[in-house]
Amino acid sequence: MRHPRFTLSSFLILTLSLLSCQAPPEAPRPNLIVIFCDDLGYGDLASFGHPTIRTPNLDRMAQEGQKWTHFYSAASVCTPSRAALLTGRLPVRNGMMSPKSRVLFPDSASGIPENEVTLAEALRAEGYATACVGKWHLGHLPQYLPTNNGFDSYFGIPYSNDMDQTRKGSTRELVKTARIEYWNVPLLRDQEVVERPADQRTITKRYSEEAVRFIRENRERPFFLYLAHSLPHVPLFASEEFLGTSKRGLYGDVVEEIDHGVGQIMQALTDLGIAERSLVVFTSDNGPWLPYKEHGGSAGLLREGKGATWEGGMREPTIFWWPGKLDSGVVMEMGATLDLFSTFCEIAGAKVPADRIMDSYDLGPVLFGTGESPRKSMFFYRESKLYAVRLDEFKAHFITKPVYTGRTEAETHHDPPLLYHLGRDPGEQYDVAHLHPDVIQSIEKLVAVHQSEMVFGEDRLAQQSPDARR
Amino acid sequence: MRHPRFTLSSFLILTLSLLSCQAPPEAPRPNLIVIFCDDLGYGDLASFGHPTIRTPNLDRMAQEGQKWTHFYSAASVCTPSRAALLTGRLPVRNGMMSPKSRVLFPDSASGIPENEVTLAEALRAEGYATACVGKWHLGHLPQYLPTNNGFDSYFGIPYSNDMDQTRKGSTRELVKTARIEYWNVPLLRDQEVVERPADQRTITKRYSEEAVRFIRENRERPFFLYLAHSLPHVPLFASEEFLGTSKRGLYGDVVEEIDHGVGQIMQALTDLGIAERSLVVFTSDNGPWLPYKEHGGSAGLLREGKGATWEGGMREPTIFWWPGKLDSGVVMEMGATLDLFSTFCEIAGAKVPADRIMDSYDLGPVLFGTGESPRKSMFFYRESKLYAVRLDEFKAHFITKPVYTGRTEAETHHDPPLLYHLGRDPGEQYDVAHLHPDVIQSIEKLVAVHQSEMVFGEDRLAQQSPDARR
Repeated sequence: MRHPRFTLSSFLILTLSLLSCQAPPEAPRPNLIVIFCDDLGYGDLASFGHPTIRTPNLDRMAQEGQKWTHFYSAASVCTPSRAALLTGRLPVRNGMMSPKSRVLFPDSASGIPENEVTLAEALRAEGYATACVGKWHLGHLPQYLPTNNGFDSYFGIPYSNDMDQTRKGSTRELVKTARIEYWNVPLLRDQEVVERPADQRTITKRYSEEAVRFIRENRERPFFLYLAHSLPHVPLFASEEFLGTSKRGLYGDVVEEIDHGVGQIMQALTDLGIAERSLVVFTSDNGPWLPYKEHGGSAGLLREGKGATWEGGMREPTIFWWPGKLDSGVVMEMGATLDLFSTFCEIAGAKVPADRIMDSYDLGPVLFGTGESPRKSMFFYRESKLYAVRLDEFKAHFITKPVYTGRTEAETHHDPPLLYHLGRDPGEQYDVAHLHPDVIQSIEKLVAVHQSEMVFGEDRLAQQSPDARR
Repeated sequence: MRHPRFTLSSFLILTLSLLSCQAPPEAPRPNLIVIFCDDLGYGDLASFGHPTIRTPNLDRMAQEGQKWTHFYSAASVCTPSRAALLTGRLPVRNGMMSPKSRVLFPDSASGIPENEVTLAEALRAEGYATACVGKWHLGHLPQYLPTNNGFDSYFGIPYSNDMDQTRKGSTRELVKTARIEYWNVPLLRDQEVVERPADQRTITKRYSEEAVRFIRENRERPFFLYLAHSLPHVPLFASEEFLGTSKRGLYGDVVEEIDHGVGQIMQALTDLGIAERSLVVFTSDNGPWLPYKEHGGSAGLLREGKGATWEGGMREPTIFWWPGKLDSGVVMEMGATLDLFSTFCEIAGAKVPADRIMDSYDLGPVLFGTGESPRKSMFFYRESKLYAVRLDEFKAHFITKPVYTGRTEAETHHDPPLLYHLGRDPGEQYDVAHLHPDVIQSIEKLVAVHQSEMVFGEDRLAQQSPDARR
């Protein structure tokens, strides 16, 4: 149980921080909002090149804010990606990535470790109101739920919307004629199931409404909102208002409904007069789920999608918005969901845990135009193995393996690694390893240091038990 | 020779139009500008999804104007594409597409037919000042040059920048270490060679400067400017100011220099106070030349590139800009370079030839928010054969053939045709022919009507002669 520990430590931290900032009265601390999509592809927003999905709100957000074109999730599937965002640590460090299971399932017996400090915990310790709305997927048993991990409240589904299937047959077939009752996914408020199966047709709309309500109710104090949409992960559902309206079909309907919700959030912040002290970040957990064809998204010109350590699997369409505060424009420097931890803590004056290795950089210099991104590298893990590493503009693939083919596929080890220049060749098409042995050497040195410090956490994803089933 | 005919007819038309508009004094007629790139891919602008090419001017143009995501060139290679833009007619109608030669070459003995009415001729007949700046590629012999086809002046190269090679070896090898003297391409002013080889390192910069000069000199009268950049067609060159500055490498340098020129043009129009009576259209002649790898562009999520009748070969990143006049936003309706003829003539009050079949639609309803695009279909020809047809959201491929593989490739005929829903599947990945026999029937009917009216023009591209060599 985390609560007792939190209360004590938060009291101490709060006291210390109150003591340290007695002098001039400070401006109210900024609100922090993450809007996190599920399986949205790099190429799925109009401003990221999609020709038939309308995202006017996100386009405006990108136009007024910063459009990041080299922003990564820390894993190419759901559970480890979310763990990384909320802890600022690579999921291999805390057992939230596993060689045996890609993600958590309804019969998983475990979840996010108790000794991990979540971003919500760090911010709540500084007096932030915290809410989690949407998909969790870091453990569905009570001790792993958001309200035991730093969030004051929770409204959403505990795992993926395609889990707990009630019909026989492949998910690929079921999603084509999806009905909500094909999946027995529970909808929770805090720790209670309030609807089962969750009515996914209205879920995006309800998440956005819940987010706006939380914003309104907390307009007088700093807050952290983690809005993790459960869509456009298959099965796809949209509310009546959006169903059948997008040229992109059902997938487009879903993305356009999410975009609409983003517009509602921006509007609420503006109407309440708090937009200028609110940072909103929009991104996604991993790339598009390509085997689902029209029901999956598009990575644009990037290679591959969800599950892969190619760019399409882990580079996300990302927007930072903070009216009057950010240098607006296109940002081509590197950032990652891992970095939201340090960036938010820096902005909020919160503590980044000092007793453990963090994989999180403060992106403030880029946001506020004072310097370069401190992130110069990115480690691409899959199933707890280091598959690829990016250093500056170059990415080396040491291992590659096909994804979601339905067969057990073999790894291919590359020595020398495949090497791509992501600036000149963003689609990872032209191996230039033979031209840059020096770069490979630099990357190998980086890997050696990284691996010498790596301690793998106990595997949390492979622990399954029928009793755990919710 | 076209000049005498033009003078007489223009006098008559001018007289008639003066008579017809005596009543209230009209606002000055709008200026019309086309900025046409060479081999720029659908995905090569930041606003169309490229992650490492900076195009702030084009992004602003798209933001203030209309970003068209379904705008086509009429051919997937240079000569026929340009012929279509300037005549509003499919190039098979006037011999500017051939089963024997993709484009015109330095020893081609022919060019655009004398009896074709060019957009410049139609607009000059209404008193427009007309200038062609950049690559022509509709015949390099005097009678085929811009100044004999409706343009008051010309400054540019008469054919592609990779032609008239002075070194042995494959172009693919030569472009890697390109020097201007590897290609003996002439630079013309009107009909005179003023530089040979053209210094391609400064050519983009000089084209933009020439365009701005023409705009300044003609600010008091309506003008038509056709600025056809000869880049980013290989070999790539950029001026010192841009060389080595883009994350995308040399290709990015080139595109960013073109973008800079677009900014200069927008700025000149604004500074002169004529932006609000100037329509600027930015687009490209065909898709990216993929076999050139890092020296070629990207079609983003679209399939294939230059030479192909897949979307990547003929869909272009297109922007319409006219401050204060256009409903700004993303336009997902269909348009084509063919349509610039009717659209511009309608805006200018000029005559569209009535004595021949035109393939041009007035896009005014979409530009000015009064209705839908009249273009509901698109015919995709290659080497004078009808390969594919788009009708509304569906595209049927009757023939496909690989491109630029260096081998003679066989055509594959498809019966039933391959069918793609371009709204739901913009990447043409999922053939849905079996689901929509009715759509195929509608397309086949459209094809039957189209073919019953088709008269193929005499082949202009296959006529070669060593004497013609310039």
